[in-house]
Amino acid sequence: MNTQTAAVKPYVIGLDLGGTNSVFGIVDARGEIKATTAIKTQGYDTAEDYVDACIEALQVIIDEVGGLELIKAMGIGAPNGNYYSGAVEFAPNLAWAHNSKVPLAKMFSERLGGIPVGLTNDANAAAVGEMTYGVARGMKNFIVLTLGTGVGSGIVINGQLVYGSDGFAGELGHVTMRRENGRLCGCGRKGCLEAYCSATGVARSAREFLEKTDEPSLLRELDPEQITSLDVSIAAGKGDALAKRIYDFTGHMLGEACADFAAFASPEAFIFFGGMTKAGDLIMEPIKKSYDEHVMPIFKGKAEFLVSGLDGSSAAVLGASAIGWEL
Amino acid sequence: MNTQTAAVKPYVIGLDLGGTNSVFGIVDARGEIKATTAIKTQGYDTAEDYVDACIEALQVIIDEVGGLELIKAMGIGAPNGNYYSGAVEFAPNLAWAHNSKVPLAKMFSERLGGIPVGLTNDANAAAVGEMTYGVARGMKNFIVLTLGTGVGSGIVINGQLVYGSDGFAGELGHVTMRRENGRLCGCGRKGCLEAYCSATGVARSAREFLEKTDEPSLLRELDPEQITSLDVSIAAGKGDALAKRIYDFTGHMLGEACADFAAFASPEAFIFFGGMTKAGDLIMEPIKKSYDEHVMPIFKGKAEFLVSGLDGSSAAVLGASAIGWEL
Repeated sequence: MNTQTAAVKPYVIGLDLGGTNSVFGIVDARGEIKATTAIKTQGYDTAEDYVDACIEALQVIIDEVGGLELIKAMGIGAPNGNYYSGAVEFAPNLAWAHNSKVPLAKMFSERLGGIPVGLTNDANAAAVGEMTYGVARGMKNFIVLTLGTGVGSGIVINGQLVYGSDGFAGELGHVTMRRENGRLCGCGRKGCLEAYCSATGVARSAREFLEKTDEPSLLRELDPEQITSLDVSIAAGKGDALAKRIYDFTGHMLGEACADFAAFASPEAFIFFGGMTKAGDLIMEPIKKSYDEHVMPIFKGKAEFLVSGLDGSSAAVLGASAIGWEL
Repeated sequence: MNTQTAAVKPYVIGLDLGGTNSVFGIVDARGEIKATTAIKTQGYDTAEDYVDACIEALQVIIDEVGGLELIKAMGIGAPNGNYYSGAVEFAPNLAWAHNSKVPLAKMFSERLGGIPVGLTNDANAAAVGEMTYGVARGMKNFIVLTLGTGVGSGIVINGQLVYGSDGFAGELGHVTMRRENGRLCGCGRKGCLEAYCSATGVARSAREFLEKTDEPSLLRELDPEQITSLDVSIAAGKGDALAKRIYDFTGHMLGEACADFAAFASPEAFIFFGGMTKAGDLIMEPIKKSYDEHVMPIFKGKAEFLVSGLDGSSAAVLGASAIGWEL
């Protein structure tokens, strides 16, 4: 092996562009973060101002690891990120991108000596991250479901991320799970998976469950409007029956959804990513049970159900950086 | 161009292995069928006997086109056909394969001088057929839905057929469309798309619609147990309001399903294949209308809705033959 060549550019930059913070990491091929920094995502009038601030922060950690000549590429995970265009497109929560297409990949590449820069949404970045450094190493067909404020997904088929005809494929949070009397979803439609199985969906379930009965529950000590999925998880951990049923309900629906996804892609694994996976068996067990009940016999017992193998706090940066290795 | 090389093996064999008939075609690269023959699929005790009979019939048309040295490869579309194993696996309707895995691809290859033989299910074969000779030429992301006795599907992503981890991906007839009080499906589960939108599903809808009301309908002249989707289509063509509503109901559900499939794969087209597409606008219009109502705003207006471009009577043979060109 030509270690000289391999050693020339041993790092990629990852940018986890979130609604609040933009977190950067410089990462090696084994997924070790060599340097990291962050800036606020908001407070810039234009995308140019945002990129200026990013480059200023980045330059410090680039110097720290030995300079730009050691950087192979950059990957960005961003809301409404489109891989084909390399742009963040009409992202409702980003003031500098809410009514336009911002070609961030091109803008960063120009400011970083022309290195290749790839951009996609955070769930797709998570999927590439799992394939590169996580539990999906060696897998060719798997689905990552990110359970956070929303439900996102990254789908890998034949070893390739599914971007579809327009770069926006893999919106599994918006398959319809309840066609009658479904909850209103943020996307404007009704009954979406995300309206039930995101962290906000779980909090909503808690309020519904509390209203429906007089059953005692630790959750009654809280202001219903302030309940979070973490509160439900803590209460369930203390043995609260109603809280447990909320996770059963959530996991049951995720299992139903995965059974349909199996009919589509027959993946070797479903990988769950994001804050809600901290609930552990509380959410994973009902998912697996419901999947077994709902999946076509031909697919039964074939798929694994895994929790992300990426380190929690830096998982999103690792995912983004993994896009860099793919370029 | 080296026309000598190109001309050496100008043909592939296609085998449409159906429950009743096994139809063979020898096809050129433009999708023209040069010779065709058929045998009955049933009446053989063993798979070997079946292949013997096939080879005997095939030899005649192989000689007709100029001999085996002009044949590049063979493709087979078969129920429960697995591309990875090249086998027909536990096909309930095939006496010589209902409780075993029959490695048909290998068996045919051995009997045909070692030419490559590929095998998959009929819906996947239809998808490759559309990509090779039909309306999906040049497309990289599309979904074929076959509306026949059942509902099958062939999914193409990044220009490749989706086989999944086990070779059985693409069972979109078995996504769950009605989670409460869903119709029992042949797969043993409830509420599957196939239970409503196959030809048998349409006939079932007809019986349900007739029972529910006293509304006059041409369909009342028929024995309810004998009604077929063709009867419904003919009645609707004559302006029968109840028959039209049955197609509206069917198309509406297909549109809902396609909206979910878009969230998965964001295809550039949905292509409908099989007997029920003969109903034309009667089925296609409600599909499109319902899709527009149900799809996520981000995907709206992006996908085309097409009817198969393969000639009806030989579509399945063409699809099977197209597998041969892929090998």
